Amino acid sequence: MATPGPLQTDEEEVQEANLAFYDALRSLKLARMEAVWLHEPWVRCLHPGWDLLVGWEEVKRSWVDIFRSTTQMMVSISRSLVHVVGDTAWVSCLENVTSTYEEGFSTAVVEATNIYVRRQGKWLLAHHHSTLLPGQVPPGTSSSVQ
Amino acid sequence: MATPGPLQTDEEEVQEANLAFYDALRSLKLARMEAVWLHEPWVRCLHPGWDLLVGWEEVKRSWVDIFRSTTQMMVSISRSLVHVVGDTAWVSCLENVTSTYEEGFSTAVVEATNIYVRRQGKWLLAHHHSTLLPGQVPPGTSSSVQ
Repeated sequence: MATPGPLQTDEEEVQEANLAFYDALRSLKLARMEAVWLHEPWVRCLHPGWDLLVGWEEVKRSWVDIFRSTTQMMVSISRSLVHVVGDTAWVSCLENVTSTYEEGFSTAVVEATNIYVRRQGKWLLAHHHSTLLPGQVPPGTSSSVQ
Repeated sequence: MATPGPLQTDEEEVQEANLAFYDALRSLKLARMEAVWLHEPWVRCLHPGWDLLVGWEEVKRSWVDIFRSTTQMMVSISRSLVHVVGDTAWVSCLENVTSTYEEGFSTAVVEATNIYVRRQGKWLLAHHHSTLLPGQVPPGTSSSVQ
Protein backbone atom coordinates (compact mmCIF):
# COMPACT_ATOMS: atom_id res chain seq x y z
CA MET A 1 0.00 0.00 0.00
CA ALA A 2 3.09 2.28 0.06
CA THR A 3 2.85 3.69 -3.45
CA PRO A 4 -0.24 3.69 -5.60
CA GLY A 5 0.04 0.90 -8.12
CA PRO A 6 -1.69 0.61 -11.47
CA LEU A 7 -5.49 0.52 -11.49
CA GLN A 8 -6.87 -2.79 -10.27
CA THR A 9 -8.84 -5.02 -12.55
CA ASP A 10 -12.35 -6.03 -11.48
CA GLU A 11 -11.00 -9.49 -10.69
CA GLU A 12 -8.33 -8.06 -8.39
CA GLU A 13 -10.91 -5.91 -6.64
CA VAL A 14 -13.10 -8.95 -6.05
CA GLN A 15 -10.17 -10.99 -4.75
CA GLU A 16 -9.48 -8.14 -2.33
CA ALA A 17 -13.12 -7.99 -1.22
CA ASN A 18 -13.02 -11.75 -0.68
CA LEU A 19 -9.89 -11.48 1.46
CA ALA A 20 -11.61 -8.75 3.47
CA PHE A 21 -14.48 -11.16 4.18
CA TYR A 22 -12.04 -13.71 5.60
CA ASP A 23 -10.22 -10.99 7.54
CA ALA A 24 -13.59 -10.10 9.07
CA LEU A 25 -14.17 -13.77 9.91
CA ARG A 26 -10.77 -14.01 11.61
CA SER A 27 -11.36 -10.77 13.53
CA LEU A 28 -14.53 -12.14 15.22
CA LYS A 29 -15.77 -8.52 15.08
CA LEU A 30 -19.34 -7.96 13.97
CA ALA A 31 -18.59 -4.43 12.74
CA ARG A 32 -16.06 -5.81 10.26
CA MET A 33 -18.48 -8.47 9.05
CA GLU A 34 -21.17 -5.77 8.65
CA ALA A 35 -18.77 -3.76 6.51
CA VAL A 36 -18.24 -6.50 3.92
CA TRP A 37 -21.87 -7.67 3.46
CA LEU A 38 -24.64 -6.10 1.46
CA HIS A 39 -27.46 -5.21 3.87
CA GLU A 40 -30.44 -6.37 1.84
CA PRO A 41 -33.41 -8.61 2.64
CA TRP A 42 -32.43 -10.96 -0.20
CA VAL A 43 -28.85 -11.80 0.76
CA ARG A 44 -28.36 -15.46 1.70
CA CYS A 45 -25.90 -17.53 3.70
CA LEU A 46 -25.40 -21.26 4.18
CA HIS A 47 -23.03 -22.14 7.02
CA PRO A 48 -21.96 -25.80 7.28
CA GLY A 49 -24.64 -27.69 9.18
CA TRP A 50 -27.10 -24.78 9.21
CA ASP A 51 -30.27 -24.17 7.22
CA LEU A 52 -30.12 -21.44 4.59
CA LEU A 53 -30.34 -17.96 6.11
CA VAL A 54 -32.21 -15.32 4.12
CA GLY A 55 -31.85 -11.57 4.60
CA TRP A 56 -29.16 -9.51 6.25
CA GLU A 57 -30.86 -9.52 9.67
CA GLU A 58 -30.77 -13.34 9.84
CA VAL A 59 -27.26 -13.47 8.44
CA LYS A 60 -26.04 -10.86 10.92
CA ARG A 61 -27.60 -12.80 13.80
CA SER A 62 -25.68 -15.92 12.73
CA TRP A 63 -22.40 -14.05 12.87
CA VAL A 64 -23.29 -12.71 16.34
CA ASP A 65 -23.86 -16.31 17.47
CA ILE A 66 -20.73 -17.67 15.79
CA PHE A 67 -18.51 -14.89 17.11
CA ARG A 68 -19.97 -15.26 20.61
CA SER A 69 -19.20 -18.99 20.80
CA THR A 70 -15.75 -18.80 19.19
CA THR A 71 -12.62 -17.69 21.03
CA GLN A 72 -10.29 -17.83 18.02
CA MET A 73 -10.79 -18.42 14.31
CA MET A 74 -7.87 -19.27 12.04
CA VAL A 75 -8.75 -19.20 8.35
CA SER A 76 -6.61 -19.43 5.27
CA ILE A 77 -8.00 -19.60 1.77
CA SER A 78 -6.58 -21.19 -1.35
CA ARG A 79 -7.46 -21.96 -4.99
CA SER A 80 -9.51 -18.77 -5.26
CA LEU A 81 -11.25 -18.51 -8.64
CA VAL A 82 -13.08 -15.32 -9.62
CA HIS A 83 -15.50 -14.57 -12.42
CA VAL A 84 -16.98 -11.13 -13.04
CA VAL A 85 -20.10 -10.30 -15.10
CA GLY A 86 -20.95 -6.61 -14.96
CA ASP A 87 -21.61 -5.61 -11.36
CA THR A 88 -21.77 -9.20 -10.12
CA ALA A 89 -18.89 -11.53 -9.35
CA TRP A 90 -18.49 -14.91 -7.74
CA VAL A 91 -15.56 -16.59 -6.08
CA SER A 92 -14.92 -20.29 -5.50
CA CYS A 93 -12.33 -20.89 -2.82
CA LEU A 94 -11.18 -23.48 -0.33
CA GLU A 95 -11.26 -22.43 3.30
CA ASN A 96 -8.97 -24.07 5.83
CA VAL A 97 -10.66 -23.23 9.12
CA THR A 98 -9.62 -23.94 12.68
CA SER A 99 -12.11 -22.68 15.25
CA THR A 100 -11.32 -22.61 18.96
CA TYR A 101 -14.12 -22.69 21.48
CA GLU A 102 -14.21 -22.80 25.30
CA GLU A 103 -14.33 -26.61 25.11
CA GLY A 104 -11.80 -27.36 22.39
CA PHE A 105 -11.24 -26.78 18.72
CA SER A 106 -12.30 -28.05 15.33
CA THR A 107 -10.63 -28.05 11.95
CA ALA A 108 -12.30 -28.25 8.58
CA VAL A 109 -11.75 -27.79 4.88
CA VAL A 110 -14.67 -26.01 3.26
CA GLU A 111 -15.55 -25.30 -0.36
CA ALA A 112 -17.18 -21.86 -0.60
CA THR A 113 -19.07 -19.93 -3.23
CA ASN A 114 -19.18 -16.21 -2.47
CA ILE A 115 -21.22 -13.90 -4.69
CA TYR A 116 -20.40 -10.19 -4.63
CA VAL A 117 -22.42 -7.25 -5.98
CA ARG A 118 -20.78 -3.90 -6.81
CA ARG A 119 -22.47 -0.89 -5.20
CA GLN A 120 -20.97 2.57 -5.71
CA GLY A 121 -17.65 1.05 -6.66
CA LYS A 122 -17.47 -1.33 -3.70
CA TRP A 123 -17.88 -5.12 -3.96
CA LEU A 124 -20.15 -6.37 -1.18
CA LEU A 125 -20.97 -9.95 -0.22
CA ALA A 126 -24.50 -10.97 -1.19
CA HIS A 127 -24.33 -14.77 -0.94
CA HIS A 128 -22.12 -17.21 0.97
CA HIS A 129 -22.55 -20.95 0.43
CA SER A 130 -20.13 -23.26 2.22
CA THR A 131 -19.77 -27.03 2.11
CA LEU A 132 -17.65 -29.14 4.44
CA LEU A 133 -15.28 -31.43 2.55
CA PRO A 134 -14.97 -34.15 5.19
CA GLY A 135 -12.32 -36.18 3.42
CA GLN A 136 -9.88 -33.31 3.18
CA VAL A 137 -9.07 -32.46 6.75
CA PRO A 138 -5.33 -31.77 7.08
CA PRO A 139 -3.47 -34.64 8.75
CA GLY A 140 -2.80 -34.38 12.46
CA THR A 141 -5.79 -32.23 13.27
CA SER A 142 -9.21 -32.85 14.69
CA SER A 143 -12.04 -32.95 12.22
CA SER A 144 -14.89 -32.57 14.68
CA VAL A 145 -17.13 -29.70 13.70
CA GLN A 146 -20.10 -28.48 15.62
CA MET B 1 -47.91 -22.90 -23.32
CA ALA B 2 -51.29 -22.82 -25.13
CA THR B 3 -51.75 -19.07 -25.39
CA PRO B 4 -49.02 -16.48 -25.08
CA GLY B 5 -49.24 -14.89 -21.63
CA PRO B 6 -47.94 -11.51 -20.53
CA LEU B 7 -44.21 -10.91 -20.81
CA GLN B 8 -42.21 -12.76 -18.18
CA THR B 9 -40.19 -10.93 -15.58
CA ASP B 10 -36.47 -11.69 -15.33
CA GLU B 11 -37.20 -13.63 -12.14
CA GLU B 12 -39.77 -15.79 -13.90
CA GLU B 13 -37.37 -16.45 -16.76
CA VAL B 14 -34.70 -17.56 -14.29
CA GLN B 15 -37.12 -19.81 -12.43
CA GLU B 16 -37.97 -21.39 -15.78
CA ALA B 17 -34.28 -21.85 -16.65
CA ASN B 18 -33.75 -23.44 -13.26
CA LEU B 19 -36.63 -25.86 -13.80
CA ALA B 20 -35.13 -26.73 -17.19
CA PHE B 21 -31.86 -27.66 -15.45
CA TYR B 22 -33.72 -30.10 -13.19
CA ASP B 23 -35.72 -31.42 -16.16
CA ALA B 24 -32.36 -32.12 -17.83
CA LEU B 25 -31.16 -33.88 -14.68
CA ARG B 26 -34.26 -36.07 -14.57
CA SER B 27 -33.95 -36.87 -18.28
CA LEU B 28 -30.46 -38.39 -17.86
CA LYS B 29 -29.80 -37.04 -21.38
CA LEU B 30 -26.49 -35.28 -21.98
CA ALA B 31 -27.91 -33.22 -24.87
CA ARG B 32 -30.45 -31.65 -22.54
CA MET B 33 -27.81 -30.91 -19.91
CA GLU B 34 -25.62 -29.36 -22.62
CA ALA B 35 -28.51 -27.10 -23.62
CA VAL B 36 -28.91 -25.51 -20.18
CA TRP B 37 -25.23 -24.87 -19.35
CA LEU B 38 -22.95 -22.12 -20.53
CA HIS B 39 -20.04 -23.71 -22.41
CA GLU B 40 -17.17 -21.66 -21.03
CA PRO B 41 -13.83 -22.62 -19.47
CA TRP B 42 -14.77 -20.75 -16.28
CA VAL B 43 -18.05 -22.43 -15.39
CA ARG B 44 -17.88 -24.45 -12.16
CA CYS B 45 -19.75 -27.29 -10.53
CA LEU B 46 -19.63 -28.89 -7.08
CA HIS B 47 -21.52 -32.18 -6.85
CA PRO B 48 -21.98 -33.62 -3.34
CA GLY B 49 -18.86 -35.56 -2.42
CA TRP B 50 -16.88 -34.39 -5.45
CA ASP B 51 -14.07 -31.86 -5.79
CA LEU B 52 -14.92 -28.62 -7.56
CA LEU B 53 -15.06 -29.03 -11.33
CA VAL B 54 -13.83 -26.12 -13.45
CA GLY B 55 -14.70 -25.56 -17.10
CA TRP B 56 -17.48 -26.92 -19.26
CA GLU B 57 -15.42 -29.92 -20.46
CA GLU B 58 -14.92 -31.17 -16.88
CA VAL B 59 -18.50 -30.42 -15.95
CA LYS B 60 -19.81 -32.20 -19.03
CA ARG B 61 -17.67 -35.26 -18.25
CA SER B 62 -19.20 -35.41 -14.76
CA TRP B 63 -22.71 -35.51 -16.22
CA VAL B 64 -21.63 -38.27 -18.61
CA ASP B 65 -20.40 -40.29 -15.60
CA ILE B 66 -23.46 -39.55 -13.47
CA PHE B 67 -25.91 -40.36 -16.26
CA ARG B 68 -24.04 -43.56 -17.13
CA SER B 69 -24.20 -44.91 -13.57
CA THR B 70 -27.80 -43.87 -12.89
CA THR B 71 -30.83 -45.76 -14.15
CA GLN B 72 -33.44 -43.31 -12.85
CA MET B 73 -33.29 -39.88 -11.22
CA MET B 74 -36.26 -38.41 -9.41
CA VAL B 75 -35.82 -34.75 -8.46
CA SER B 76 -38.25 -32.22 -7.09
CA ILE B 77 -37.24 -28.75 -6.01
CA SER B 78 -38.75 -26.47 -3.40
CA ARG B 79 -38.19 -23.10 -1.68
CA SER B 80 -36.67 -21.62 -4.82
CA LEU B 81 -35.36 -18.09 -4.25
CA VAL B 82 -34.15 -15.98 -7.18
CA HIS B 83 -32.20 -12.75 -7.31
CA VAL B 84 -31.32 -10.96 -10.55
CA VAL B 85 -28.62 -8.30 -11.06
CA GLY B 86 -28.31 -7.26 -14.69
CA ASP B 87 -27.43 -10.29 -16.78
CA THR B 88 -26.60 -12.46 -13.79
CA ALA B 89 -28.99 -14.28 -11.50
CA TRP B 90 -28.70 -16.84 -8.74
CA VAL B 91 -31.14 -19.32 -7.32
CA SER B 92 -31.14 -21.02 -3.93
CA CYS B 93 -33.31 -24.12 -3.88
CA LEU B 94 -33.78 -27.39 -2.05
CA GLU B 95 -33.44 -30.51 -4.16
CA ASN B 96 -35.18 -33.73 -3.14
CA VAL B 97 -33.27 -36.33 -5.09
CA THR B 98 -33.78 -40.08 -5.38
CA SER B 99 -31.24 -41.78 -7.63
CA THR B 100 -31.60 -45.38 -8.71
CA TYR B 101 -28.54 -47.39 -9.70
CA GLU B 102 -28.01 -50.99 -10.75
CA GLU B 103 -27.35 -51.90 -7.10
CA GLY B 104 -30.05 -49.91 -5.31
CA PHE B 105 -31.09 -46.35 -4.70
CA SER B 106 -30.22 -43.33 -2.57
CA THR B 107 -32.26 -40.40 -1.37
CA ALA B 108 -30.96 -37.01 -0.35
CA VAL B 109 -31.99 -33.45 0.38
CA VAL B 110 -29.55 -30.98 -1.12
CA GLU B 111 -29.20 -27.20 -0.80
CA ALA B 112 -28.15 -25.76 -4.15
CA THR B 113 -26.87 -22.44 -5.40
CA ASN B 114 -27.24 -22.09 -9.17
CA ILE B 115 -25.81 -19.03 -10.92
CA TYR B 116 -27.18 -18.13 -14.35
CA VAL B 117 -25.78 -15.73 -16.94
CA ARG B 118 -28.00 -14.24 -19.69
CA ARG B 119 -26.61 -14.65 -23.21
CA GLN B 120 -28.66 -13.42 -26.18
CA GLY B 121 -31.80 -13.44 -24.08
CA LYS B 122 -31.28 -16.95 -22.69
CA TRP B 123 -30.35 -17.71 -19.08
CA LEU B 124 -27.61 -20.37 -18.99
CA LEU B 125 -26.17 -22.17 -15.98
CA ALA B 126 -22.66 -21.02 -15.10
CA HIS B 127 -22.23 -22.37 -11.56
CA HIS B 128 -23.82 -25.19 -9.59
CA HIS B 129 -22.89 -25.68 -5.93
CA SER B 130 -24.72 -28.39 -4.02
CA THR B 131 -24.53 -29.41 -0.36
CA LEU B 132 -26.05 -32.53 1.18
CA LEU B 133 -28.24 -31.74 4.17
CA PRO B 134 -27.86 -35.05 5.99
CA GLY B 135 -30.34 -34.31 8.75
CA GLN B 136 -33.17 -33.62 6.34
CA VAL B 137 -33.70 -36.90 4.57
CA PRO B 138 -37.43 -37.54 4.23
CA PRO B 139 -38.66 -40.19 6.68
CA GLY B 140 -39.00 -43.76 5.41
CA THR B 141 -36.29 -43.45 2.78
CA SER B 142 -32.69 -44.49 2.52
CA SER B 143 -30.14 -41.78 3.10
CA SER B 144 -27.13 -43.58 1.68
CA VAL B 145 -25.45 -41.52 -0.97
CA GLN B 146 -22.48 -42.62 -3.00
